[in-house]
Amino acid sequence: MTENGTEFDPATLKFNSDGLIPAIIQDVANGQVLMLAWMNEEALRRTIREGRVTFWSRSRQEYWRKGDTSGHKQFVREISHDCDSDTLLIQVEQVGAACHTGERSCFDGRRIAGGDA
Amino acid sequence: MTENGTEFDPATLKFNSDGLIPAIIQDVANGQVLMLAWMNEEALRRTIREGRVTFWSRSRQEYWRKGDTSGHKQFVREISHDCDSDTLLIQVEQVGAACHTGERSCFDGRRIAGGDA
Repeated sequence: MTENGTEFDPATLKFNSDGLIPAIIQDVANGQVLMLAWMNEEALRRTIREGRVTFWSRSRQEYWRKGDTSGHKQFVREISHDCDSDTLLIQVEQVGAACHTGERSCFDGRRIAGGDA
Repeated sequence: MTENGTEFDPATLKFNSDGLIPAIIQDVANGQVLMLAWMNEEALRRTIREGRVTFWSRSRQEYWRKGDTSGHKQFVREISHDCDSDTLLIQVEQVGAACHTGERSCFDGRRIAGGDA
């Protein structure tokens, strides 16, 4: 149910020319941004239905339910879209590490600029 | 300067087929995700050099330094890339609202699912 009480239709989102939309994954526990990955309409429908985050892997061209292999599942707490309906923000309970490198976040330890001023 | 003390070269990032990379903008004050927009290599170079966030507008096909029109500037505090170098995370001091609608975040009030359980 959305804020106005009606069912949200994923087809109303703006997917790109490849049928994909970026999803920002944020740790509900502390607000840390964990990763960004891509969904098609069906991946979003599965994510809503199952309460676990499923992406579309652009490199492997297949659905990828986070944690099925690694155990590092993402349980959905809240999904929002942005003002122009072309980006998703998903707050999750993250089990273990979000990054395949073992880091909690895919952005950990990869600073380009700032933060040391 | 990056974490290992060398200058970061934006050309080492993975830009998409349009020469763009998504940038997640996060409020350094409270961790709120404010928006996602796109940069090309030059927009990132300007952002690093000026300490203010500049995007590439896909719709207008021009550089867009956030806040030049609205006053809602974004001052860079830290920039990181992710593990596969195709997404940026930028922590900012946000002046006023990040969203053109006047909301603090582009995701405010646009819940699709969850959050009301």
